[in-house]
Amino acid sequence: MGSIDLKKYDLRSDLIIESNLDVKHLEYKEENISVDYVHLNKDNLGKRKGDYITISFLDITDSNNFNKVLKVLNRELKKIFKLSNIKDNDKCLIIGLGNNKSTPDSLGFEVLKNIIVTRHLDELNLMDRKYRSVACLEPSVIGNTGIDSFDIIEGVNKKIKPDFVIVIDSLAAINISRIEKTIQISNTGISPGSGIGNNRPELSFESLGCKVIAIGIPTVVSSAVIVNDTINYLTKKISYQKNNLTKSKMISPNNLNYLKEESDLSNFEKEKLLGIIGTLSDSEIKSLVYEVLNPIGYNLIVSTKEIDFMIEKFGKLIGMSLNECLHKN
Amino acid sequence: MGSIDLKKYDLRSDLIIESNLDVKHLEYKEENISVDYVHLNKDNLGKRKGDYITISFLDITDSNNFNKVLKVLNRELKKIFKLSNIKDNDKCLIIGLGNNKSTPDSLGFEVLKNIIVTRHLDELNLMDRKYRSVACLEPSVIGNTGIDSFDIIEGVNKKIKPDFVIVIDSLAAINISRIEKTIQISNTGISPGSGIGNNRPELSFESLGCKVIAIGIPTVVSSAVIVNDTINYLTKKISYQKNNLTKSKMISPNNLNYLKEESDLSNFEKEKLLGIIGTLSDSEIKSLVYEVLNPIGYNLIVSTKEIDFMIEKFGKLIGMSLNECLHKN
Amino acid sequence: MGSIDLKKYDLRSDLIIESNLDVKHLEYKEENISVDYVHLNKDNLGKRKGDYITISFLDITDSNNFNKVLKVLNRELKKIFKLSNIKDNDKCLIIGLGNNKSTPDSLGFEVLKNIIVTRHLDELNLMDRKYRSVACLEPSVIGNTGIDSFDIIEGVNKKIKPDFVIVIDSLAAINISRIEKTIQISNTGISPGSGIGNNRPELSFESLGCKVIAIGIPTVVSSAVIVNDTINYLTKKISYQKNNLTKSKMISPNNLNYLKEESDLSNFEKEKLLGIIGTLSDSEIKSLVYEVLNPIGYNLIVSTKEIDFMIEKFGKLIGMSLNECLHKN
Amino acid sequence: MGSIDLKKYDLRSDLIIESNLDVKHLEYKEENISVDYVHLNKDNLGKRKGDYITISFLDITDSNNFNKVLKVLNRELKKIFKLSNIKDNDKCLIIGLGNNKSTPDSLGFEVLKNIIVTRHLDELNLMDRKYRSVACLEPSVIGNTGIDSFDIIEGVNKKIKPDFVIVIDSLAAINISRIEKTIQISNTGISPGSGIGNNRPELSFESLGCKVIAIGIPTVVSSAVIVNDTINYLTKKISYQKNNLTKSKMISPNNLNYLKEESDLSNFEKEKLLGIIGTLSDSEIKSLVYEVLNPIGYNLIVSTKEIDFMIEKFGKLIGMSLNECLHKN
Repeated sequence: MGSIDLKKYDLRSDLIIESNLDVKHLEYKEENISVDYVHLNKDNLGKRKGDYITISFLDITDSNNFNKVLKVLNRELKKIFKLSNIKDNDKCLIIGLGNNKSTPDSLGFEVLKNIIVTRHLDELNLMDRKYRSVACLEPSVIGNTGIDSFDIIEGVNKKIKPDFVIVIDSLAAINISRIEKTIQISNTGISPGSGIGNNRPELSFESLGCKVIAIGIPTVVSSAVIVNDTINYLTKKISYQKNNLTKSKMISPNNLNYLKEESDLSNFEKEKLLGIIGTLSDSEIKSLVYEVLNPIGYNLIVSTKEIDFMIEKFGKLIGMSLNECLHKN
Repeated sequence: MGSIDLKKYDLRSDLIIESNLDVKHLEYKEENISVDYVHLNKDNLGKRKGDYITISFLDITDSNNFNKVLKVLNRELKKIFKLSNIKDNDKCLIIGLGNNKSTPDSLGFEVLKNIIVTRHLDELNLMDRKYRSVACLEPSVIGNTGIDSFDIIEGVNKKIKPDFVIVIDSLAAINISRIEKTIQISNTGISPGSGIGNNRPELSFESLGCKVIAIGIPTVVSSAVIVNDTINYLTKKISYQKNNLTKSKMISPNNLNYLKEESDLSNFEKEKLLGIIGTLSDSEIKSLVYEVLNPIGYNLIVSTKEIDFMIEKFGKLIGMSLNECLHKN
Repeated sequence: MGSIDLKKYDLRSDLIIESNLDVKHLEYKEENISVDYVHLNKDNLGKRKGDYITISFLDITDSNNFNKVLKVLNRELKKIFKLSNIKDNDKCLIIGLGNNKSTPDSLGFEVLKNIIVTRHLDELNLMDRKYRSVACLEPSVIGNTGIDSFDIIEGVNKKIKPDFVIVIDSLAAINISRIEKTIQISNTGISPGSGIGNNRPELSFESLGCKVIAIGIPTVVSSAVIVNDTINYLTKKISYQKNNLTKSKMISPNNLNYLKEESDLSNFEKEKLLGIIGTLSDSEIKSLVYEVLNPIGYNLIVSTKEIDFMIEKFGKLIGMSLNECLHKN
Repeated sequence: MGSIDLKKYDLRSDLIIESNLDVKHLEYKEENISVDYVHLNKDNLGKRKGDYITISFLDITDSNNFNKVLKVLNRELKKIFKLSNIKDNDKCLIIGLGNNKSTPDSLGFEVLKNIIVTRHLDELNLMDRKYRSVACLEPSVIGNTGIDSFDIIEGVNKKIKPDFVIVIDSLAAINISRIEKTIQISNTGISPGSGIGNNRPELSFESLGCKVIAIGIPTVVSSAVIVNDTINYLTKKISYQKNNLTKSKMISPNNLNYLKEESDLSNFEKEKLLGIIGTLSDSEIKSLVYEVLNPIGYNLIVSTKEIDFMIEKFGKLIGMSLNECLHKN
């Protein structure tokens, strides 16, 4: 590829499940919902040590599916609280990261809308004992406030000294199929907006002096991902057609079996189909696209047409789950 | 009035111009817009020492009037900056107090929407020298966050250390005629929401360690005010009719001359008209109404039908004025 | 009262339960929720003939109370459908009246947010038979569109020809105690915004050619009401104190027993307390206040501090109830 | 390409300037803003006969650039009114198409926010003669209302009978470089949302019985476009590098000259680089991507990170321009 150095590019995903980490994944499934556990006992490939829970699902727009995912989310939140050794009376600060003026980045904002706050009652000893002290903070983004969200968080955190914080954020994925179909929960701390390529101080026990639970949902993929996924799906499709043309001259466009099978095109076939591109790895292709599109300065994001509607739904889902899991009753 | 103790009630106004302070008011007028200055050299009747500028006007919905008020506001803001000894390069933090979920209380929120923030550029030395470092903070209200707005402000203030803060807030008035027709600017510090009867630590040089400019607009009156104003207007009207019935048997309902004249009803006439009520002072009447309505627990506010529209307009007015006055160009 | 003619003023309420109609009210109660039925067999005092159901309650902010009111609302909605002879497959158009730029007037707008629309699926024969064809229309107000809401409604109604329409609107009350504590359902047709003194063609079987169900909630009272209610509460309080001073020299300000008892002050006592005012009827007092305040041109509304929050809650309440009652399942 | 039939796919753009029409383009430039005229005297390749004006620019976020584009827009709007033979007193109905719950599709909604409506005053003969009768309608989308936007428009249009309508809509582009950098004005009528692949009755003189001016701004590209543009930019880049490697061994990644030059790679080189893909035309590549991604059911849109902010800006730009151009003063 001429003078293009592919190594120096790295498109990062916020999702442990999309990382190339060679770690043991424990997983179990229940009809259309799967849960995946990873424990890192040391930092690794930019992923911090600790517990990661990934909930994968197909839909939450149907109230039936919504309730199924809610049930699983409740269970897993309680699990991470236990894994993080959070006590019933520990005071909680929920931080909604992101930009309420950018829909795909407004998950934190939407979640806070649904949170029942109790800290002010607790401070006045008016709070029923079955509740936990819960406060909310929405630091917005530096572009709106002129203040790094970390500075707002640290300033308020020092002042009210919660026992743990819960951080809500929109995430970036590197596979289309993850958008709006995954919830990641971790107790490892996070770097706000890292997935979207910003650089901010991380929110962690080290920086805040209290436990940090993070809840995130991928709402965007970089435009580079589209090109890469297309090439992969294309390869799979051609491969599938090659193997099945004998059985059926005509393959319906709605036949999606090819998605299930891995491509078995030879490198020669791949190169014939896609030229040099066909010989590149995923990350090489993404870097190439990044290299080509980025300098042109198109600050593009890819999201779904339903993003406004979905963000509202997820805000309700996570908000309801937190209200349920944070309090004894 | 039986066992009702009128003394212990005090309906407070946020407006110096509505106070009973016996101070010299310097004022000048320009067609439909008047400006009133007060300087207190010591705290007095719950009003803090310092400078108060009150701009009174009839309308800002017509773009012509909007621009006239904007011009005056720009001039007065620059004046208070000078009076407060604010330097061209002093770093500014603009705080939008109030509750964006309660329209009459969302002035601060609406103003922040219109502010150009520059602090993040300044921190990176990317800011054009003709600008000043400006940051924004929206602490919301304790009912939404569980955190006293003062704690959020103090925490962030300690962290970013501005040279001065500008506080925007909706105010409560005790005269209907002030609603949406007054802007009060002061350099005395304020107690958030004092007018609506909440108790919060005050925002002042003493508490924040930097100068505090406050900009407020009355958007509500307590329901007690309606009763009192009605009784006053009624007395004036009857008095006017008494004095003019000879000249004209019939007085048109649209004849508003009575508003211009003071009532000259004798105490006897007043008592005949209004009984014991007629013998009470304004503050006694307001306290009486407060005493009667409050225990019933009707948390009422009186605002205009156009409040949503007006708040947006005032947000634009103050935002534009701050953008104009904070920067060299 | 000199040349003031009290008769020509009439402050109108949108609530049948606040009218002076001498009709038989059938009512039943269940803990904190009462339901009141009126059937008019001919138009009367500006109220149209037909069925009126009034649900009165204390609170819907607590989820427990919310669900109780929801249960009652579901039952009463089904009852009015039956009384109005609405069939399972009748196509429905839900019209959200009001102004989404004025919070107290945005009930219709908030309800529509929560409605599941199906008409487009029905037109394509994609709709599951257990659903009914439901469409939504938000005509906004003439001040925003330049078009009378009636013209928009009639134009669309002619085009899509529903079997019945459901009209949602914010109402005006003439007693503080009704605000946000009443739901009125009727099958009599309505005049949009009549309560707030506008004049619009009425929405009725005569004008639209299909049945009209109206659902309304009082969100505002005119400022005149405050004065009148204050005077009434005051009279009650003084009367109560007169009768109880023997038993207890001191009556605590939080003693609200006086609200439960009727005033038994003699006309002489009333006049001593309130002068001529004390001798006026409610409607005379309201008219008097109206006469005094109105020419001054203060376009005031009285609502609760929580109106933004409450409107959202009621939007959810009515929306959920309509989704439940309009479809077979 | 196996059994894939490329012909049957056609990714449509809403922009005449992106069409393959072989028509005479008259254009002129003024620093960073260019205007392009096309007149079709008969329908052609799915584009209707009439006048098309395309304004291209780089930025409207800087107030300086905003005002420059506004000036040009005002001039071109007045021009299309003249071309369409619109009289000073012709009554106007402005229709904001699209979905206010989907940011990239909410341009119409944002524009209406900024329109001064006068029709209601005109109907009451209260309108100053220097104004024109202007009304607004926001039909929303069938998914929100259950009613085809065309039915709402036709119903209201029949009722209020304007002399001409102005239709505002978000458009879909097929080149990244068009997003948020183009305004298209036409007097040819439009098919709502055609660009996003929906099918609705068109809004035209034939269907509405009055002149139809359309104003649109491309806010999204289909994901297929990303792949295609990437491949084109890639080819250009490689071609450029091939031609310039002699002069400089190393080409900086920020060297964007390659964008200015056309690729001169031979078919052999193209195929070596991109395989079969390299031999396909743009529309073949887009169809291929469409074929691969679509069945997987990812309803993706590509927009910019700033879309929420930009939509608000464009709403203001077009709103201000319409207020300026529709009235005599």
